[in-house]
Amino acid sequence: GRPLVLIAGPCVIEEQGLTLRIAEYLKELTAKLGIGLVFKASYDKANRTSISSFRGPGMAQGLEILARIRREFEVPVLSDIHDISQISAAAEVLDILQIPAFLSRQTDLLVAAAATGKVVNVKKGQFLAPWDMANAVKKIEEAGNTQVLLTERGASFGYNNLVVDMRSLVVMRETGCPVVFDATHSVQLPGGAGTSSGGQRQYVGALSRAAVAVGVDALFWEVHENPDQALCDGPNSLPLGDLPAMLEQILAIDTLVKQGG
Amino acid sequence: GRPLVLIAGPCVIEEQGLTLRIAEYLKELTAKLGIGLVFKASYDKANRTSISSFRGPGMAQGLEILARIRREFEVPVLSDIHDISQISAAAEVLDILQIPAFLSRQTDLLVAAAATGKVVNVKKGQFLAPWDMANAVKKIEEAGNTQVLLTERGASFGYNNLVVDMRSLVVMRETGCPVVFDATHSVQLPGGAGTSSGGQRQYVGALSRAAVAVGVDALFWEVHENPDQALCDGPNSLPLGDLPAMLEQILAIDTLVKQGG
Amino acid sequence: GRPLVLIAGPCVIEEQGLTLRIAEYLKELTAKLGIGLVFKASYDKANRTSISSFRGPGMAQGLEILARIRREFEVPVLSDIHDISQISAAAEVLDILQIPAFLSRQTDLLVAAAATGKVVNVKKGQFLAPWDMANAVKKIEEAGNTQVLLTERGASFGYNNLVVDMRSLVVMRETGCPVVFDATHSVQLPGGAGTSSGGQRQYVGALSRAAVAVGVDALFWEVHENPDQALCDGPNSLPLGDLPAMLEQILAIDTLVKQGG
Amino acid sequence: GRPLVLIAGPCVIEEQGLTLRIAEYLKELTAKLGIGLVFKASYDKANRTSISSFRGPGMAQGLEILARIRREFEVPVLSDIHDISQISAAAEVLDILQIPAFLSRQTDLLVAAAATGKVVNVKKGQFLAPWDMANAVKKIEEAGNTQVLLTERGASFGYNNLVVDMRSLVVMRETGCPVVFDATHSVQLPGGAGTSSGGQRQYVGALSRAAVAVGVDALFWEVHENPDQALCDGPNSLPLGDLPAMLEQILAIDTLVKQGG
Repeated sequence: GRPLVLIAGPCVIEEQGLTLRIAEYLKELTAKLGIGLVFKASYDKANRTSISSFRGPGMAQGLEILARIRREFEVPVLSDIHDISQISAAAEVLDILQIPAFLSRQTDLLVAAAATGKVVNVKKGQFLAPWDMANAVKKIEEAGNTQVLLTERGASFGYNNLVVDMRSLVVMRETGCPVVFDATHSVQLPGGAGTSSGGQRQYVGALSRAAVAVGVDALFWEVHENPDQALCDGPNSLPLGDLPAMLEQILAIDTLVKQGG
Repeated sequence: GRPLVLIAGPCVIEEQGLTLRIAEYLKELTAKLGIGLVFKASYDKANRTSISSFRGPGMAQGLEILARIRREFEVPVLSDIHDISQISAAAEVLDILQIPAFLSRQTDLLVAAAATGKVVNVKKGQFLAPWDMANAVKKIEEAGNTQVLLTERGASFGYNNLVVDMRSLVVMRETGCPVVFDATHSVQLPGGAGTSSGGQRQYVGALSRAAVAVGVDALFWEVHENPDQALCDGPNSLPLGDLPAMLEQILAIDTLVKQGG
Repeated sequence: GRPLVLIAGPCVIEEQGLTLRIAEYLKELTAKLGIGLVFKASYDKANRTSISSFRGPGMAQGLEILARIRREFEVPVLSDIHDISQISAAAEVLDILQIPAFLSRQTDLLVAAAATGKVVNVKKGQFLAPWDMANAVKKIEEAGNTQVLLTERGASFGYNNLVVDMRSLVVMRETGCPVVFDATHSVQLPGGAGTSSGGQRQYVGALSRAAVAVGVDALFWEVHENPDQALCDGPNSLPLGDLPAMLEQILAIDTLVKQGG
Repeated sequence: GRPLVLIAGPCVIEEQGLTLRIAEYLKELTAKLGIGLVFKASYDKANRTSISSFRGPGMAQGLEILARIRREFEVPVLSDIHDISQISAAAEVLDILQIPAFLSRQTDLLVAAAATGKVVNVKKGQFLAPWDMANAVKKIEEAGNTQVLLTERGASFGYNNLVVDMRSLVVMRETGCPVVFDATHSVQLPGGAGTSSGGQRQYVGALSRAAVAVGVDALFWEVHENPDQALCDGPNSLPLGDLPAMLEQILAIDTLVKQGG
């Protein structure tokens, strides 16, 4: 196995300065640790729990900021797309088009994303079995694109809770696609805070260590300078200061496991 | 409570003759039983398990057939919309715009559907708690539309299985919105047949009786002349011939329960 | 199908006077409604959440009270057994020996209960599929006893919650055994109140109507003169005063469904 | 944290020679690896799916074999107890009394086990939340015994399947009790093979690495010379030959994580 890649950034682009500072921090940290970085940030949160939640700067301004980060920090960028109409503009900037979990069965969206030739990262729906993702991969491959990532982000477990079935990482790897573990969204408590989703940041480290010990290709973390004031997914975002120690330990596990395998 | 309404039709519009015959049958049957009918059929199945599954005639031709059914049989028509770009054309024909379960948190889609002034039927996501639907209702109401239906269609229960939590019908009714029980999709086994979803038609009757005994405003059934040859959701569609006896019993329960309430 | 039987009584025998008054009330009510009654009460709650919870009067005194109720009100009595050592004494008094859900796979307990020749009511474990109950039935039948009842009382659904899968009633009936719906324990929130289990009495009516509409042989309800002061399972017990109206409606549904079948 | 302990042995005592050979193998292996060993084997499987399943040699003969292993290999021994009547005999031989998951709420059994002064290992019920285990700990502690282990062995996830929620390991550690991860039973498919439980041996390694990366005090593995011919739980038992490489990697992860913590 190849060494772990970190996909990280804020949940949503809040304002340009903050977003650039986060990118710079992540770039320096991953350079020092000798691992790959993909910068992620959403420009429009299309499925917030409540209509009054902050949604982001919108596509045009958001893509501009992502393009700047890509250029200045020489880092691939990833963002999620919710609608076919967004794809061509997004594909001009992004290196990886991400299909949100709720939309992981929308054939047209998968095919349109595939047609750009960009890497497509499909998040496994909370309502899907890991073996069902083979159908998503097939939809993309039959559209002529073999660069597919699959992301685990938890499965529905009763109401307002998700569980990570670590077997899923093994099952999805059997497709031949690189597998990403999205620790941030796996610790969401969907709808659990009434008009927003709650989260359990305190389990991000444990679940990330577990996933890396099982064997994954990338970790997906949402991070923030000050998660408690983040405009989106604060309860499950990591403060930047926690990253160095967490990553160091995780990379040691990754090395061990990938030697062993 | 008002008497039960039946929302029924084939999963997907297969060919015009068959679709008209089904509509005619349903119209005569519900007239004889003295209950309301909404005719439902999809013109494009956008989230089939496999890319090679039949998807329907497409929007233009599909809406034409629905318009003809609406006119000839004087029956309101319902279909599902997957993309904002479809909404204005769909709203010219449809009486009820249905938001698929996977998309029940997509704010833009909900708001755009609301803006048409048509009735909006939101299916509860398999990954949502019934109380979370209050947020979907609020998104639509804040867009100025108070005609919202909420539909139960099962909750994720392990892999490749759904369970109907009958408490959900009570909880969703507390929003003040009419509540629909979609028996057809509640007995789906998502992805359970590998490259398609399986289904358990044999439980449609039992679950429908149960839901009506709890108290609902409408039942949603997919029906077909010959379900085993249906191009979509055959395993969970009802043969037309089963409807009269099933409905008669169900209406008797409905009457009992609504007197009692 | 034969008409519905009511299995009812307090969760636990609190004091003799109260227990007799409840039995008398139930006897009169079911006589007036023309349905069968089985009186249930536990003499020892062996698996309370907390060690300081009230457990009951113990076996000797409890069985004495149940024997008196059986004699005075001419009603069969049911109680649960947790240990093989209790069985012979219990079988001298009880008409139905009940195997608690947690113990539904304990072979020795099933076999020992079977050997008494009494009716055995096995509650389906919250961790079992309905088709798994065929194995419990077989254990009892191979021990020479064919009088088996199977009881649905909810399935684990995430943490601290249960869901009733109404399909289970149909599946369990295929064993040929009469099927009981235990509405009281189906609305438990196990461990949900920290050091005791919570409950949702408000759904007992809806779930009972649903189960009867699906088709069951008996309903199991825990009842109390004053549930809010009950020493066990108060949050999911019904006040006696609610019973007449609820049962009347439920019996009308039962009649309808059993005619139809 | 202290270094990992291995709790291992065959599911059930089949015959003495085989059982001794397994004990000898485990003793040598763990000595070489420098870790602690607890030998486990059941003398009576009281809750097999089917009445015709092999149950073991019974208590008397089983305890004799365990006593011999304890003496000859100087290793603590663990076995599960299903009934209060077994406890005093079992406590004369065993170092650790194990409470099966289905019985984890049976107050009398917990209290009687506690009263022996032996270490008590409580398996978390498949139907319990991790925080509910605080009540089991309290029952034992109030009976005067503070030597409690808590074991994760999967939570009910739909029918015939279990999922390991790795957050559970963190939550249970907050009780202050050492936490064991039982990989063998976590990959059971309860009832999944009709008249026996299926299993997924292929995930034992991945889940064990994950649990150790989260942080646990002991791993629980059922092992066999030839799992495909094992008389119990073969599908989820490990062949002895797989152990050295698996354990080496796992111990390296354990060291890393316990340094980091």
